[in-house]
Amino acid sequence: MRAAWVEDGEVRVRDDVAMPAPTAGEAAIAVRLAGLCGTDLELVRGYAAFSGVPGHEFVGTVIDAPGAMQWVGRRVVGEINVRCGECRECRAGRGNHCGKRRVLGIRRLSGALAERVILPVENLHAVPDGVSDEAAVFAEPLAAALAIQAQVGIGAGDRVLIVGAGRLGQLIARSLQSTGCELHVVTRHARPRELLAACGIAGIAEDDVEYASYDVTIEASGAESGLALARWALRPRGTLVLKSTHHGDRSFDFALLVVDEITVVGSRCGPFAPALHLLQTRGVDPTPLIDGTFALAETPAAFVQAARPGALKILVRPPLL
Amino acid sequence: MRAAWVEDGEVRVRDDVAMPAPTAGEAAIAVRLAGLCGTDLELVRGYAAFSGVPGHEFVGTVIDAPGAMQWVGRRVVGEINVRCGECRECRAGRGNHCGKRRVLGIRRLSGALAERVILPVENLHAVPDGVSDEAAVFAEPLAAALAIQAQVGIGAGDRVLIVGAGRLGQLIARSLQSTGCELHVVTRHARPRELLAACGIAGIAEDDVEYASYDVTIEASGAESGLALARWALRPRGTLVLKSTHHGDRSFDFALLVVDEITVVGSRCGPFAPALHLLQTRGVDPTPLIDGTFALAETPAAFVQAARPGALKILVRPPLL
Repeated sequence: MRAAWVEDGEVRVRDDVAMPAPTAGEAAIAVRLAGLCGTDLELVRGYAAFSGVPGHEFVGTVIDAPGAMQWVGRRVVGEINVRCGECRECRAGRGNHCGKRRVLGIRRLSGALAERVILPVENLHAVPDGVSDEAAVFAEPLAAALAIQAQVGIGAGDRVLIVGAGRLGQLIARSLQSTGCELHVVTRHARPRELLAACGIAGIAEDDVEYASYDVTIEASGAESGLALARWALRPRGTLVLKSTHHGDRSFDFALLVVDEITVVGSRCGPFAPALHLLQTRGVDPTPLIDGTFALAETPAAFVQAARPGALKILVRPPLL
Repeated sequence: MRAAWVEDGEVRVRDDVAMPAPTAGEAAIAVRLAGLCGTDLELVRGYAAFSGVPGHEFVGTVIDAPGAMQWVGRRVVGEINVRCGECRECRAGRGNHCGKRRVLGIRRLSGALAERVILPVENLHAVPDGVSDEAAVFAEPLAAALAIQAQVGIGAGDRVLIVGAGRLGQLIARSLQSTGCELHVVTRHARPRELLAACGIAGIAEDDVEYASYDVTIEASGAESGLALARWALRPRGTLVLKSTHHGDRSFDFALLVVDEITVVGSRCGPFAPALHLLQTRGVDPTPLIDGTFALAETPAAFVQAARPGALKILVRPPLL
């Protein structure tokens, strides 16, 4: 089959990738649409030492599911962590943190930038009829945005700053609107600011960020300067949420963290059910964030486009089979 | 008056320090006994760019308190942060984080390694009669240990690891005993381990720490290797408490923090009332941790002793006036 392929610091398209076959408990899914995120760009730069088919944001149609044929024909999205089911983390209900986990398109599991992808049936969520493919493909990153609320209490009266108005920052901002918090999003560019304004969210310039004045700051830029700004803007005893997967070590003044009694929370994957609910009810409409859709054969160009400063969501569409 | 003096990377004793005088709302306190902690050693190394009289752990007798004479003659300990009372942090009830705060013996406020020390009356706590000077001098660091429980929920069933069995680690361990958690303390030396064992607390060697197996880890060693061990021993979605004031930047893999969804909590000062209660009821007896008591004139020798590997609490006793 045709699939994107990451290896040795580059991404290309291969037509000779073996078509995967599902075993009992797994589903074979024809990918309808896939999305690129910052982690995919980091994979090419060496993050997670991954080689193979990338891609972990997708919507597709189940075409085979041995032992669970009721799934066949259904439109689905899928959680990306495949757990062992037996270790301490799995038994504690933290399967996303299973030490033996495979992660779709990131860790020992072939990804969704392909004609077919395999996932356990237990990872699938049916997409409600009213949700378009173009919206459903955002289920995974929107769930990741919602993870913040599952980890940190954010409510009316809280001042929250998001650093970064890219793919992820835009989704986080939209996901926080229903909390009633006072929300500012740092952005350097006009277009992301306009997209925020269209939802009634305030974009502000870096220079307008007030020192030590936010209860919660969220680093979603992936830049070292973004981490510094999120730290700078946070009040003592505030919470800094790290949402970007920075590749490599970062230097950090831990004495200041102790003196100001900051809490730093790492945040990764989130709950799909509320994400799909938000998409269905149009509590969040992510489709204005789509910046281009490429054929699977054009994946390298899609990666180039996604890496441009200010680029938002780039989608990849495999050929319909 | 006689006082210790930190300047240009060294500590010495001066006999020509001006005797401080209290203004309205302040108390002049004759220091009975003062303690040294890791922060004092860091001050000499340049932390907080402090020069002047160090010392923030003390017990003393109030000898003057204009407008609050009911305090005169009382034996007291004192909270170390002197707030402005007017800024956003003070108004929000976080006076310990006032941006204009002075901090006893650390930041723009002459410390307790002296014959006399001045503090606002609102910072004072009377020492119950049954508590000896040798126990009361631990009120400040024991309060700092108790801050952890105020910030992080720790209960029966939680596995907790303390990295470092020095001055601070020993107090933290004792302060956590009443939570019913499963508690291990990493120590390289026999004596700290014996002191822990005498309280029924398990000391373990670094090599016996199990990977990713603790719900909460507490860095109390002040060493970069301690930070790495605390990170290593923590399970996904666990909480790492930073209790030591590390001087300077430390390198840290923030990607791993995001992937494992770790929470890092900086923790500094804590509540005095429960600390004094624990001392009064002997819920914690810190006096076995005393490793030596020096005259104020011998403060430089006290600092040398406190800096020795494995040294526990070193006290300094000003002359009785």
